[in-house]
Amino acid sequence: MKTLKINRDTIQNLLSDLLKRSPNSYKEYEDAVADIIKNVQNEGDKAVFEYAYKFDQAQINKNNIKVSDMEIKEAYNQIDSTLLEVIQKAKKNIREFHEKQRQYSWFDSKPDGSILGQKVTPIKTAGVYVPGGKAVYPSSVLMNVMPAKVAGVKKIVMTTPCNKEGKINPNTLVAAKEAGVDEIYKTGGAQAIAALAYGTESIPKVDKIVGPGNIYVALAKKAVYGNVGIDSIAGPSEILVLADETANPRYVAADLLSQAEHDELASAILVTTSEILAEQVKKEIGIFLKQLSRKTILEKSIENYGYILIAENLDEAIQVTNEIASEHLEIVTKDPFQVMTKIENAGAIFLGEYSSEPLGDYFAGPNHVLPTNGTAKFFSPLSVDDFIKKSSIISFSKESLEPIHEDIIKFAEAEQLTAHANSIKVRFEK
Amino acid sequence: MKTLKINRDTIQNLLSDLLKRSPNSYKEYEDAVADIIKNVQNEGDKAVFEYAYKFDQAQINKNNIKVSDMEIKEAYNQIDSTLLEVIQKAKKNIREFHEKQRQYSWFDSKPDGSILGQKVTPIKTAGVYVPGGKAVYPSSVLMNVMPAKVAGVKKIVMTTPCNKEGKINPNTLVAAKEAGVDEIYKTGGAQAIAALAYGTESIPKVDKIVGPGNIYVALAKKAVYGNVGIDSIAGPSEILVLADETANPRYVAADLLSQAEHDELASAILVTTSEILAEQVKKEIGIFLKQLSRKTILEKSIENYGYILIAENLDEAIQVTNEIASEHLEIVTKDPFQVMTKIENAGAIFLGEYSSEPLGDYFAGPNHVLPTNGTAKFFSPLSVDDFIKKSSIISFSKESLEPIHEDIIKFAEAEQLTAHANSIKVRFEK
Repeated sequence: MKTLKINRDTIQNLLSDLLKRSPNSYKEYEDAVADIIKNVQNEGDKAVFEYAYKFDQAQINKNNIKVSDMEIKEAYNQIDSTLLEVIQKAKKNIREFHEKQRQYSWFDSKPDGSILGQKVTPIKTAGVYVPGGKAVYPSSVLMNVMPAKVAGVKKIVMTTPCNKEGKINPNTLVAAKEAGVDEIYKTGGAQAIAALAYGTESIPKVDKIVGPGNIYVALAKKAVYGNVGIDSIAGPSEILVLADETANPRYVAADLLSQAEHDELASAILVTTSEILAEQVKKEIGIFLKQLSRKTILEKSIENYGYILIAENLDEAIQVTNEIASEHLEIVTKDPFQVMTKIENAGAIFLGEYSSEPLGDYFAGPNHVLPTNGTAKFFSPLSVDDFIKKSSIISFSKESLEPIHEDIIKFAEAEQLTAHANSIKVRFEK
Repeated sequence: MKTLKINRDTIQNLLSDLLKRSPNSYKEYEDAVADIIKNVQNEGDKAVFEYAYKFDQAQINKNNIKVSDMEIKEAYNQIDSTLLEVIQKAKKNIREFHEKQRQYSWFDSKPDGSILGQKVTPIKTAGVYVPGGKAVYPSSVLMNVMPAKVAGVKKIVMTTPCNKEGKINPNTLVAAKEAGVDEIYKTGGAQAIAALAYGTESIPKVDKIVGPGNIYVALAKKAVYGNVGIDSIAGPSEILVLADETANPRYVAADLLSQAEHDELASAILVTTSEILAEQVKKEIGIFLKQLSRKTILEKSIENYGYILIAENLDEAIQVTNEIASEHLEIVTKDPFQVMTKIENAGAIFLGEYSSEPLGDYFAGPNHVLPTNGTAKFFSPLSVDDFIKKSSIISFSKESLEPIHEDIIKFAEAEQLTAHANSIKVRFEK
């Protein structure tokens, strides 16, 4: 973990180091991804089955690609009943928070007969990608599916790779069923994204694809963007703790490590005005590293993307925090709400010493799918907004069009769009 | 203009014909675009200047790339004063409509000390691309800039190519100034998008890029997506008129042509339950074609992407309308508001015989940057939403964390994320 005083060069170097982890920095995989997509477009199921065998040694065919009711039932028999209860409680909190994000159609009418507005409609079908492999995250299933459910999406299709035996982890299946997924297909990687984007004999085409994945999945999502909607281009996880001398170094250290354990590209940054705190946090990290099970990953991510940045004062600390635009931001200062008012860029903001980041990952209710890698400057957390779209509503009467019709004709003619002008003219021709 | 009875095959063929016009169907330009982007990333201004000379024969350097106050003043001297007034009126309507799209930060607190919410922050800097060449669309400048302005974007940077003499059309410059653009740079094409995405010595990096452009611009926007935000992948313009026997065939014909005149790839579709109306509209189109100035474009787009679809009944007509998901939809039926309730996918919906599409292009207030090519199934009109982003707010007290802390630990441990569990544990250790 590097300790650095903040200055222009430090921050520029740090930002460009972090940016190397972005999916856009892995252009060398683009051709392989484009090939997979093209094959699925051309060959449909056949390509999907072949890739399942090639990448996961799974024997998938049109009879077993869709998860059956029996498999779901089996998953319920296998899941730890306490975990099931926890999943149900978390789901309730997630639903409650996302229900507050609902947006409504509105209109504005004037007595001249004109009506303007926006109609809000849910997206009809959504595809949720869930990674397979060793890491099994039922929390991620809830977080990706619940906003779609609350938005009113009619059909939610999930894809996830199965293992060699054709099995999917029961916790994933139960979380999907609890969240209200309609159909689950055993397929992963770029081929799953292509199948959801274009449809195959077995897998239905959807309107929008969400969910995290490896570099192949991220680049495949980008490639199909425009043919379908996507949530965002996700990079590795990040935490930034903005702390002053009032922070508890043990809590800060634990929270930095909570994100660092995700993978070797994860980043954990402490920005502090207190050199004493910096020292204490470093010591606590050393202690935790000896105790925690994911030691190898932790050591690597802390070494590569762990930073302690010493700020001259709180203003400088806040400025750097805004520049980094971290996925998760914890504010552990004397008056965290005051500091929050100055935060411009962050995926999720955790205030005060009991608002530990994992609270947000699992339970509080806000979404844990958050903008990474500086994209909080322009992206938002996954939300109900991602599963609705709007249509403008325009209704004018003759009475309301008449007084402005010459202005419209003038504007259209200035742009040399004479057929536009003609549309207005014909309505007032004698 | 092909007249077809609606059936599965008709619609599938039509949809795949229309989809050929999508920027995603022009992958052969991707390498050229990638080269331009890489050169701008590596060489900065130098590459931008070279491309300006290569593509536009314009001699741009660091002294003249930025539009000066003098050039703006000159543009005001050159613009038709009636057009300036119309621009100002249109701007007022656009502002008024977009102000109703404002979203607000909110929170929800419980007496146990927990606070959850969403903080809404404007994007800090936005880049607006404005095409050059013969087509000059000041309306497009207003439509792209005003939502950013209303959202509270601090810095709005515009780029547009100049002509050989280094000039930009005065109407474009005046519209930019009226809308509140902060800086204008003379550069176009993929190189302008790259400059906005990564910054050069002269052109500042922005957080999000919006605005229409040719295929190079569209593919460049897609390529930089993820490093910056973009509005959408825009394709050629479209109109669909959904009409029954009550519609005025002359108005319908005029409105179909108003979009068809944009370019040869533009699409104009009439979906109707009335074969009589279909015939009448065809006749009126023939008459207008003889009168209108953009005849060559009109004839080609009507021939290639003009359709009259005959529906058995209104339900079938509505279903097809939803499948096509047109950029502009006019509903000219006996009871247009009733039909509107059944519309799921459309960029903008115009109701009744006086709501002619060009009214929305120029004047009513809603944005004319709309999802094209079926993307209304998942994209929305350009709006204030595009220039804000949200951060989740999570603040828990010890009292509110305590009753759920074991659930969080359980969930984290089930996902084998032991450092996540540790973060919660340390807060309750004895």
